[in-house]
Amino acid sequence: LHLSHVQADAVERGHFRHYMQKEIFEQAHALRETLAGRVYNGRVLEGIFGASEARLFAEIYAVQIIACGTSYHAGLIASHWIETLAKLPCSVEVASEFRYRQPLANPNALVVAISQSGETADTLAALQEAKRLGFGPSLAICNVPESSLVRTADMCFMTRAGIEIGVASTKAFTTQLLALLLLTVVLGKHNGTISESDMEGDIVHSLEQLPHAVDMLLRKVQQPIKNLAERFADKYHALFLGRGIHYPVAKEGALKLKEISYIHAEAYPAGELKHGPLALVDANMPVIAVAPNDALQEKLKSNLEEVHARGGQLFIFANHRAIMQASDYITVVELGEIDELISPILYTIPLQLLAYHVALIKGTDVDQPRNLAKSVTVE
Amino acid sequence: LHLSHVQADAVERGHFRHYMQKEIFEQAHALRETLAGRVYNGRVLEGIFGASEARLFAEIYAVQIIACGTSYHAGLIASHWIETLAKLPCSVEVASEFRYRQPLANPNALVVAISQSGETADTLAALQEAKRLGFGPSLAICNVPESSLVRTADMCFMTRAGIEIGVASTKAFTTQLLALLLLTVVLGKHNGTISESDMEGDIVHSLEQLPHAVDMLLRKVQQPIKNLAERFADKYHALFLGRGIHYPVAKEGALKLKEISYIHAEAYPAGELKHGPLALVDANMPVIAVAPNDALQEKLKSNLEEVHARGGQLFIFANHRAIMQASDYITVVELGEIDELISPILYTIPLQLLAYHVALIKGTDVDQPRNLAKSVTVE
Repeated sequence: LHLSHVQADAVERGHFRHYMQKEIFEQAHALRETLAGRVYNGRVLEGIFGASEARLFAEIYAVQIIACGTSYHAGLIASHWIETLAKLPCSVEVASEFRYRQPLANPNALVVAISQSGETADTLAALQEAKRLGFGPSLAICNVPESSLVRTADMCFMTRAGIEIGVASTKAFTTQLLALLLLTVVLGKHNGTISESDMEGDIVHSLEQLPHAVDMLLRKVQQPIKNLAERFADKYHALFLGRGIHYPVAKEGALKLKEISYIHAEAYPAGELKHGPLALVDANMPVIAVAPNDALQEKLKSNLEEVHARGGQLFIFANHRAIMQASDYITVVELGEIDELISPILYTIPLQLLAYHVALIKGTDVDQPRNLAKSVTVE
Repeated sequence: LHLSHVQADAVERGHFRHYMQKEIFEQAHALRETLAGRVYNGRVLEGIFGASEARLFAEIYAVQIIACGTSYHAGLIASHWIETLAKLPCSVEVASEFRYRQPLANPNALVVAISQSGETADTLAALQEAKRLGFGPSLAICNVPESSLVRTADMCFMTRAGIEIGVASTKAFTTQLLALLLLTVVLGKHNGTISESDMEGDIVHSLEQLPHAVDMLLRKVQQPIKNLAERFADKYHALFLGRGIHYPVAKEGALKLKEISYIHAEAYPAGELKHGPLALVDANMPVIAVAPNDALQEKLKSNLEEVHARGGQLFIFANHRAIMQASDYITVVELGEIDELISPILYTIPLQLLAYHVALIKGTDVDQPRNLAKSVTVE
């Protein structure tokens, strides 16, 4: 009986060694499923957040996101979209902090609770606390339809990532980001900042290209990341740097490496480097930079030059033209052409793969990392 | 000539080995100086933020704090005071992030820029950007009167910490916190949430007791912390945990250890432990908990029990009654009776001392840690 159970597992995993690996490669499919029926003809369809969407969103002037772990990082990324595109002030808070600090209730703030399982104890309690305090309507972004979070929120949006078994979340995260970009469009339309003719069409187009872009990217970076992983396997530390919307991507990359490779990886907004963590930089502390060709690249470059000047090993994830030339101390991973609107989603992919391959070399239990549970259903 | 310069240094340092040590022990004096002339007869005096204070604060309905490094941690602590006591929504953002993300301007938000030197390039630029975008009036909290930040802001409040020479900020931080608690009182009075009769008197009383409390605490913990430091000197990692208003205290403790001891210390809100960092916990990763006897102590206790169950070495900083019993794996540092209003200021003191004594044992250059500058006047 035990044997047949293992066989069933193996079949489900197909030719993949681990569920996490399978789930990384399933992301294009998961994104396609999550987008299906939500957009049509360059438009985000009405009512994708529920029948009461139009009524409940009409009086929304702010957004409060609550989540834990990887879902919290999705919220941080979304806050950049919501503030710059929908032009609504957006706060993001760790649910375990939010629930106990008696935050000031804003009745015009949409509360967005994000959890893959929908059973994360702190997120659920934070949502209940927000309701009790008199915040505005609530939306659950969730991967499990019958979950407590979905039953508690006024509206819900189901990601369709399929069952996620690896403890380190991958496809749930990227589908949450897709959901949050759709939310940005709908909020922006209500707030009059996203006119139907241009921005909405651009975003929908980007999201429709996303699954294919993810597959292309996975194909492109798989071998380079495998090679890179060997240089991390003997390390005990890592520093992840990013700026703006790519700082939470750096946080997510660091968390993945922590969770399954047991490397003490920490993320910093690159501008904070000189206010402390630069003291840690030496040959034993590799520095990973999420460095897209965006408006911040010159600023990031000067931060990275500080690292370089102090003997740090740099690993730069960039688009076509990296901001620094490869050398003995600088490794560049080129991701190719990246659509800026969906850049945070795409930049996450190689960081997931990096954590996976480092864990493989280290021989850790990838799908069941020590001390961690898939759903944190207790405080 | 060089020799006489060294002698002058030595005189200034008195019997202290390092400026940082001297500055830690000067904190009571610095706090007393900063409070002088700002309170009288149980009241915060009018106009301590400038002659235009009453007019400029009248239309304030939110607070936006911008700062870097240690000053950013002061802002994070203050946000708890401002939200719970003055009942004004308060955002805190790293200045290098704020200045480039085109935040939504709130004309009724007071912008508070915090910098010891008043020359921190990112904080100054963020303040200028906030003005350009149309935020409300601005206040600089600063230790150098003739600084650029003071000249740029509409109002200013000078901490009177005296010259701070150690790169790792200590007395500037605690005097910033005092300034921010005074600000909370004044904002709370304008917002009608702090009535003159009770809360204001309590806070003023607590601040008046603070210098003496700091001296008593230093005396009490100096030897225990020296002993404790020996157990950190061979470590490469540390995890600092806190909850609520003591989470930024944990962040500041971790930053101090990073800056001068080159130990990769990272802080986490304790509730996030199970969402990743718990995977890192083993005998080589000491866990430091900022664990006051407050409403969150039972919650924190269950987080710490997770660490204990996984073989982690626990170091608990607590009031009289620690939340866990000392044992082979649990070390308790008792700080004695701690007034809850000023608790974050007092809990910072032993963490500063810990970083100092670990650095001493490791033989690092305490006052000039590698790669860091006192004032970060470039981006």
